[in-house]
Parts: sequence; structure tokens; C-alpha cells
Amino acid sequence: MAASTPVVESPKTRIMMGVNESSMKGYPHASISSKSAFEWTINKIIQSNTSGFKLLFLHVQTPDEDDLPINMHLNNLSLLPHGGRGRGRRAVEAWDSPKGVSGFDDVDSIYASPEDFRDANRRDKIKGAHLLEYFVKRSHEIGVACEAWVKKGDPKEVICHEVKRIQPDLLVVGNRGLGPFQRVFVGTVSEFCVKHCECPVVTIKRSANETPQDPVDD
Amino acid sequence: MAASTPVVESPKTRIMMGVNESSMKGYPHASISSKSAFEWTINKIIQSNTSGFKLLFLHVQTPDEDDLPINMHLNNLSLLPHGGRGRGRRAVEAWDSPKGVSGFDDVDSIYASPEDFRDANRRDKIKGAHLLEYFVKRSHEIGVACEAWVKKGDPKEVICHEVKRIQPDLLVVGNRGLGPFQRVFVGTVSEFCVKHCECPVVTIKRSANETPQDPVDD
Repeated sequence: MAASTPVVESPKTRIMMGVNESSMKGYPHASISSKSAFEWTINKIIQSNTSGFKLLFLHVQTPDEDDLPINMHLNNLSLLPHGGRGRGRRAVEAWDSPKGVSGFDDVDSIYASPEDFRDANRRDKIKGAHLLEYFVKRSHEIGVACEAWVKKGDPKEVICHEVKRIQPDLLVVGNRGLGPFQRVFVGTVSEFCVKHCECPVVTIKRSANETPQDPVDD
Repeated sequence: MAASTPVVESPKTRIMMGVNESSMKGYPHASISSKSAFEWTINKIIQSNTSGFKLLFLHVQTPDEDDLPINMHLNNLSLLPHGGRGRGRRAVEAWDSPKGVSGFDDVDSIYASPEDFRDANRRDKIKGAHLLEYFVKRSHEIGVACEAWVKKGDPKEVICHEVKRIQPDLLVVGNRGLGPFQRVFVGTVSEFCVKHCECPVVTIKRSANETPQDPVDD
């Protein structure tokens, strides 16, 4: 072959990473297991071969009743996710309870107009952007190409849907490494993805020394 | 830092690969799914970064009653794996049947002395070496460091045990990509490893165009 033959670069391996926020109060931003999954990918897979990979960060926000305008909330019960929990849920129960509106004692904020939805959406976007900023910043420092999205819905279903659409070479998801008993109550996105996503999936557990006091936290 | 500071190489990522033989008659050597898993690892993970990885090939041979001396077999039923199948099993059933020794009609070879065990072991070793030769040769061509072992036992249990002992950074196993109905009868080593191995595990399915007529074959 002539020496001038251009070097044909093989396509980058596209790794999708499902990332989520920490559930711990006062623990800001990315969850421990998301960070572990990211660091494992960088250290064990990408290493110094940064030009061979592209990272696709996907953060799926669950519609959270805490952020819904309470008035709209109470008038639009269909908006409640199945098994809704948290303050909003308790407010609904209180509204239906014999004690009437006393439930509002338990509510941090009251929203009353359609604009509040816009505000909630904006706040969600900011939260999502904040989370993704961590991973995008780290990727840029390391020198690996990346993209990041925020989507709304059920994380496990949205991740599998995006895998089908984008067809990454590998999906990496974090996992709290809970025992079967704890898993029953928490459910794990990673188990669902291993079973249903149409691409190779690897789940990365937190290391033992990073497990918080309550292992269900992350 | 001084320009003479030696470059500290980070340790190689150690990828264990569970590999097995093809179950198809006349299809020699490595199974389709083992080959798919190997090619995926080379093309998508290692790429040109061959010095950053070490491959550990593990082939687990199931004690196969076809290769056991029939006399010893019949006198040492504890040697039969649970749910033993194939010619040896049928011979045992025939021995116990009212028709007596007519079961021998169904047997290819009859062994009678302890030396036959040695021969069977030697034959197993040759089969295992032959399988591993494929992967070791390919790894050398590509320029990636590797090691290969043959072990005896239940593949899923031996793989998990070796993971615990060797602590690889990643375990890659092939998978026939069977539906749940077919899986019930075949069982899958990969599902067991995903659940029980103490390291990140990725399973690689055969591509659709490599699926043989009977998908249970591999």
C-alpha cells in the first residue's frame, strides 16, 4: 500500500451510562454508585485510550410529586406515579383524611398557578443539569468525548428505550449492591436493564467502604 | 517535575473470559457465543490499547459420563453428575432395565481398567487445550497478553470460585440469547454469574445471523 494511505480510524466505542442523584440529604449531586460506575469505566476500560470512546450520560428524572404544584396535584391524581411517596403523597392522604386540610402542615411549599409547573420544570432541569455537569466536567478533564441528556419517566424503562434508539456498545449502570431482602423493597434499575436492554450491560457495585449507614441510601 | 521522571504504567485491566466448546456436531472447537464474546472484547473494549489489558481464559469441563470407563461408571454412581444425560446415562438405565445388558448396544466404547481413566483425562486435556489454543493464538496475533486454564466441575460454580480467587476487573461470558422458555431447560451459566460472581460481569449475546437452526445449539 502507498505510504499516503490515510489512517482509517475505527469508530469510537459508545458507552451509555445511567446516572442518578444521591438520595442522601445533605449529600450533594451524583449518587455514590453512579460515581463508582463512572470511575470504573474510566480506570478499567478507557484508561489512556481516551480517543477510542464516547460516553453518553443519561439521567432519568422520575416525576416527583414533591415538585408538583399542590393544587394541581390534588386535582390531577393521574399525575401521581404509582406508589407515590414523600411529602406530596402525605399531603394527599391528609386532604382525604377526617382532619381535612391539616395535611398542609406537612407541606413545604404551596403552588397555585399553572406557572408553578413551569417553575418546577425549570428547577428539575437545573437539578438535572447540575448532576450531569459533574460527569461532563470530569470527562472533559480526562479528555474523553461525551454527551449528556435528561429524560423524564420511569428510569428503567427510559434507559431500555434509549438503548434501543441509540444502540450503544455497552451500558454501564451503578448498583447499590443490596441483598435480596433490601432489593425487594427498593427494586433495582440495574437488574431490569441486565434482563431487558438490547445491548451488553455491566453493573458496578459501590465498594464496601463507600456504603452509607443505611445501604438503601446512595 | 523533572523530565526524567519514569512513566508509571497503570496495572493492566484483567478480563476473565469463560469459554466453552461448540455443542454442534461437526462444528469444531469454540462455541459461537464464546467467539462473539471474545471478538466484542477485542473490538469494543481493548481496541488498539493492547498493552492495557490481560485476558484470562477459563474453560470448565463438565465431568462427562460419555468419557468415563463404563465399568467404573456403573460401580461409582456418585460420579454421575445430577441429571446425567447422554449415552453413559442411557447405558446405566439399560443395565437396570429388565432387558439387562442390552443397553450396551447403545454404547460406543467399553473401558475396563483404571488406566482408561488416565486416557479419558488425557483426551479431555487435549480437547480443552485445543479449544484454548484458538483464543491464545488470536490473542497473540492481536498482541494482547493472556493466560488460559482448564478446570473441571460445574461451569457456573467454578467460574464464580475462580473470580473470587483471582479477582479480575471484569468477567465476560457469552450467552446464546435464548428466550425464557428455552432457558428453563438449558439453564444459563451467564445468568448465574451475573447474580453471584463478585466482580462486574458482562454477557455478550450471539448476533442474530450467527444463530444456528436450533438456537439451543451453540
